[in-house]
Amino acid sequence: MNRQETATAMMAHLDNLTKPKGSLGKLEEYALKMAVLQGRVPPVIGKKAVYVFAGDHGIVDEGVSVFPKEVTFQMVLNFLAGGAGINALARGAGWDVVAVDAGVEGTFPPPEALPRAARFINRKIGPGTKDFLLQDAMTEAEVSAALKAGEDLAAEAAGAGYDLVAIGDMGIGNTTTAAAILVALGFDPDQIVDRGTGIDDRTLERKREVIVQAVRARGPFAAPQDVLRKVGGYDLAMMAGFVLGLRGRGIGCVMDGFPVTSAVYAAWRMDASISDFCFAGHKSKVRGHAPVLSAMGLEPIVSLDMRLGEGTGATIGGFIVELACRTSAEMATFDSVGVSKTDKDEKLF
Amino acid sequence: MNRQETATAMMAHLDNLTKPKGSLGKLEEYALKMAVLQGRVPPVIGKKAVYVFAGDHGIVDEGVSVFPKEVTFQMVLNFLAGGAGINALARGAGWDVVAVDAGVEGTFPPPEALPRAARFINRKIGPGTKDFLLQDAMTEAEVSAALKAGEDLAAEAAGAGYDLVAIGDMGIGNTTTAAAILVALGFDPDQIVDRGTGIDDRTLERKREVIVQAVRARGPFAAPQDVLRKVGGYDLAMMAGFVLGLRGRGIGCVMDGFPVTSAVYAAWRMDASISDFCFAGHKSKVRGHAPVLSAMGLEPIVSLDMRLGEGTGATIGGFIVELACRTSAEMATFDSVGVSKTDKDEKLF
Repeated sequence: MNRQETATAMMAHLDNLTKPKGSLGKLEEYALKMAVLQGRVPPVIGKKAVYVFAGDHGIVDEGVSVFPKEVTFQMVLNFLAGGAGINALARGAGWDVVAVDAGVEGTFPPPEALPRAARFINRKIGPGTKDFLLQDAMTEAEVSAALKAGEDLAAEAAGAGYDLVAIGDMGIGNTTTAAAILVALGFDPDQIVDRGTGIDDRTLERKREVIVQAVRARGPFAAPQDVLRKVGGYDLAMMAGFVLGLRGRGIGCVMDGFPVTSAVYAAWRMDASISDFCFAGHKSKVRGHAPVLSAMGLEPIVSLDMRLGEGTGATIGGFIVELACRTSAEMATFDSVGVSKTDKDEKLF
Repeated sequence: MNRQETATAMMAHLDNLTKPKGSLGKLEEYALKMAVLQGRVPPVIGKKAVYVFAGDHGIVDEGVSVFPKEVTFQMVLNFLAGGAGINALARGAGWDVVAVDAGVEGTFPPPEALPRAARFINRKIGPGTKDFLLQDAMTEAEVSAALKAGEDLAAEAAGAGYDLVAIGDMGIGNTTTAAAILVALGFDPDQIVDRGTGIDDRTLERKREVIVQAVRARGPFAAPQDVLRKVGGYDLAMMAGFVLGLRGRGIGCVMDGFPVTSAVYAAWRMDASISDFCFAGHKSKVRGHAPVLSAMGLEPIVSLDMRLGEGTGATIGGFIVELACRTSAEMATFDSVGVSKTDKDEKLF
């Protein structure tokens, strides 16, 4: 079946389940989207994993964050030990956690010495990016390596049999990097710059200044890859490579909040077809998140005022996508159980 | 600990978890509410059940629904066989399903002859209510029996060890009954009357007329119990008794959509303290739902354009409450894992 045929078959399937037509609302949309991207009616979600990309950001030297840089390293260890928010949510909603060192400052112990609550993947491009107010965040070779590593991880996710992946982030300073990417790609700074993780008014003003100055200093930009190189991060570039690498694999991809969405947006500017398999897991409390989702034509699944990152919002939204698929696969049909169907319910809301 | 002490202790607990303060947004609110109602820091949700109250409505004789009345009976059998939307969602999100015959027209086979995908409880008050356009929906004895049966079920839920219950509905015509209850309790019909399950414009106009005329004919009303008796349903009255019976038991209660919320609203008018342990599981696509939630000061957890009933929205919202509690219980503290804490994150959003 091609995409259109799958969609038609899936819609017919949904309308024959024991419920009034369309009454499962967005759940029917999510199941339909999964059916089309999997080419399967009804769609099935067996295994799922959240990939948390961690990296450090040189821009933190400009005083844009209140948390010290070493928190990135410490939190990756927390993921591996199972004590972070993402671990609790992933356990509760059935996600494997994969922590990816895309470019954290500091050296992790060898694999055998690490705790195993999450899988650890070392794809470290470098010990944190350069301060992009002063110079390019990374070299050509580095951005290519980060994109390539992301694509490799997508292939690996397919090999591991994941039907749904979520993308999470961990990196002190990554909301500043994310905002710089978006401003470099044409968004208005006033729409985008926000407090990130609990900063005060003076830090916010400083952050806005840094972003605007840095984008001016690093521009002009040749293409999204050039933006990722000059004002991006290893983590965000690797996420962009990851989502590009998921094309054609029949895997759904759930975005988390602002940093992840900015990386996916950069990928979307390279190939807009990725929105066919991307879901906006949640609407973050971070102000700049919603306009970027809109630009890609994606609506957030839940809106819970979360702004933790790590993939926490994505695991919740993604679980609802899974429930949608389960429901479409497990419900009885009108014929099979002898429930009276009405043919008058054509005119729904 | 009293409520205030529990709240203070829980807030301190939440702020010591390895995340920026407040960054789990609504999840922190839900966990706090559960902590206070359980008197436990952190709160724990072990077992949970969705109670689906089924009943028939004499008002269907007035042509307010496009589905025939026998669908109520057929759908209860579908719940017991495991093929309904609520079964799929409950399996996916870990809820037991309890189908309560509050007053379905038709006689179910004896328990040993019924399938067991859901538990069946027979608390049938009668074979459907009377047509309340023409006469009172039920007698004094019946409304008392329905409220009492609901209270008994709450006691039974506590005995079974449920920490969280959801309320679902199944009854052809129950949105009309629900709207009549709300109009009798003072809501503007224009704010409340909606299509229910897929009816067309003419049926909608008829439905509005029936509700307004019936409320005029059955009034004046002495008290919420009088409203439930004259224009209510066995199912909705039993839900009201159920939620009243949950008081003081340390059990959270998640409401589903419009019919359930109207029943809980009637209970709330008897004792507004029930909102201390009630959660609005979702915002239904049914237009009249949101104003009733607002009146009780409750915000819906998710908004997925669902309008199926059966408790489907409640199982999703309630699962998020469970995730919130899990997260608050399972996350590491800053001290325990050596993650650097900032003391500058006072001024959050």
